[in-house]
Amino acid sequence: MARNEPDVAARVVMEPQEPFSSSEREAVYRAIFERRDVRRNFLPTPIPDAVLTRLLNAAHHAGSVGFMQPWDFVIVRKPSTKRAVKQLFNKTNGAAALRYKKPRADLYRTLKLEGIEESSVNLCVTCSRQRGGPHVLGRSTVRDTDLYSTCCAIQNLWLAARAEGIGVGWVSILSHAALKQVLGIPRPVKVLAYLCLGYVSEFSAKPDLEAAGWRARLPVQELVHYEAWGNRVEGKGRRQGCELPKSIQEPVTRAKRG
Amino acid sequence: MARNEPDVAARVVMEPQEPFSSSEREAVYRAIFERRDVRRNFLPTPIPDAVLTRLLNAAHHAGSVGFMQPWDFVIVRKPSTKRAVKQLFNKTNGAAALRYKKPRADLYRTLKLEGIEESSVNLCVTCSRQRGGPHVLGRSTVRDTDLYSTCCAIQNLWLAARAEGIGVGWVSILSHAALKQVLGIPRPVKVLAYLCLGYVSEFSAKPDLEAAGWRARLPVQELVHYEAWGNRVEGKGRRQGCELPKSIQEPVTRAKRG
Repeated sequence: MARNEPDVAARVVMEPQEPFSSSEREAVYRAIFERRDVRRNFLPTPIPDAVLTRLLNAAHHAGSVGFMQPWDFVIVRKPSTKRAVKQLFNKTNGAAALRYKKPRADLYRTLKLEGIEESSVNLCVTCSRQRGGPHVLGRSTVRDTDLYSTCCAIQNLWLAARAEGIGVGWVSILSHAALKQVLGIPRPVKVLAYLCLGYVSEFSAKPDLEAAGWRARLPVQELVHYEAWGNRVEGKGRRQGCELPKSIQEPVTRAKRG
Repeated sequence: MARNEPDVAARVVMEPQEPFSSSEREAVYRAIFERRDVRRNFLPTPIPDAVLTRLLNAAHHAGSVGFMQPWDFVIVRKPSTKRAVKQLFNKTNGAAALRYKKPRADLYRTLKLEGIEESSVNLCVTCSRQRGGPHVLGRSTVRDTDLYSTCCAIQNLWLAARAEGIGVGWVSILSHAALKQVLGIPRPVKVLAYLCLGYVSEFSAKPDLEAAGWRARLPVQELVHYEAWGNRVEGKGRRQGCELPKSIQEPVTRAKRG
């Protein structure tokens, strides 16, 4: 890790705040829309320490409940460690494949669901739930907000990586208990994600599962409710619609504007 | 919601892929480093429907386990709904304040921890855990990956909002059960976040809790491990260090490079 890197974050916050220019705004949306869950096209090019440091620093600048910063990062580069994790994946994925019937099972087996050994860096992101003491500000009601903060950190890293030309794939088909054994992670620390990072020859235009016909993208309009669950602009019914309390059943005037 | 907005995402993915320019990359880092959990400085300026649509579309373009896209968005603009939620906050926050002893308790009471009524839009983000059927690809081992996906969507929205000059505050001091009653959210749907959105007069240079002296930012270097938990560049001990399995205790050559 390049410890003498200038602190990009410190520099940015010292500058007077200008609104984002339209090209800056476009760049942020570009990272968001072109980010992919990457499992293929990894190049052997190593990730320089300075670049990896920037990515971890991006993750570290997510917000966190009570400013607890509960995350840790285990950087894996050794082929033997990757091989051990790949074996965990193979075991779990074999079992997962049995859950589907034909023709879905056939499609499942064609999908590439990890890039553990092909990617130059693997990164395990954890959440230390005791960090910050017993009474973490803001965590009294919803205990899992520390996990949510850690996911936000992961998304920061994912977007920064996209801007660096680095693909990131989240391997979710892993037993976290077994993974903790391999990486020596203490019992009270929770594994959130196992990520594969590497420069790629290209980013896919669409998510792999969409391109493969596994599942279609939902129209975002179908996921929006106004003032209360089930209140739709066009009043369409919803499979998960429910009887609303009388107090919030009145017409929603703003919804008409869409 | 502006349904006739051109689809920014569709446009972006049709263009040939160029690497991010250095100014595009800087813009992404700027959004990451200048994003704040905002509770003050909200302006009464309304958020245009087209802008809110862009933010929701940004959230919707997070990756999701099995491409299940489990999120929904309840948009709250009515003062009466906000007031009801604010009452929930007051109740929970009063109880939370009692957990601290002086002088921490005094500091706690000075903190502004929500902007429910001052912000022009409140947004409840949920996760529908049954979406995509019983066997969600990639969710067989870690059941909560759908929640993690939803948090990634929230971070997308948070960063896009920063680029739009819109502050976002995550109110975590709320009973989600009570919130579901207010918003009519069905039992099987999980509330992930209640966010306050609005244009702001300025973004703080530092997180509020850091500025208030509640807690300091950790040096990111202290959160990095090499190959296995506890392997540090400078070999420092860790409060959460553990005995590593023999197989992964060998010296890590890459770690020396930092």
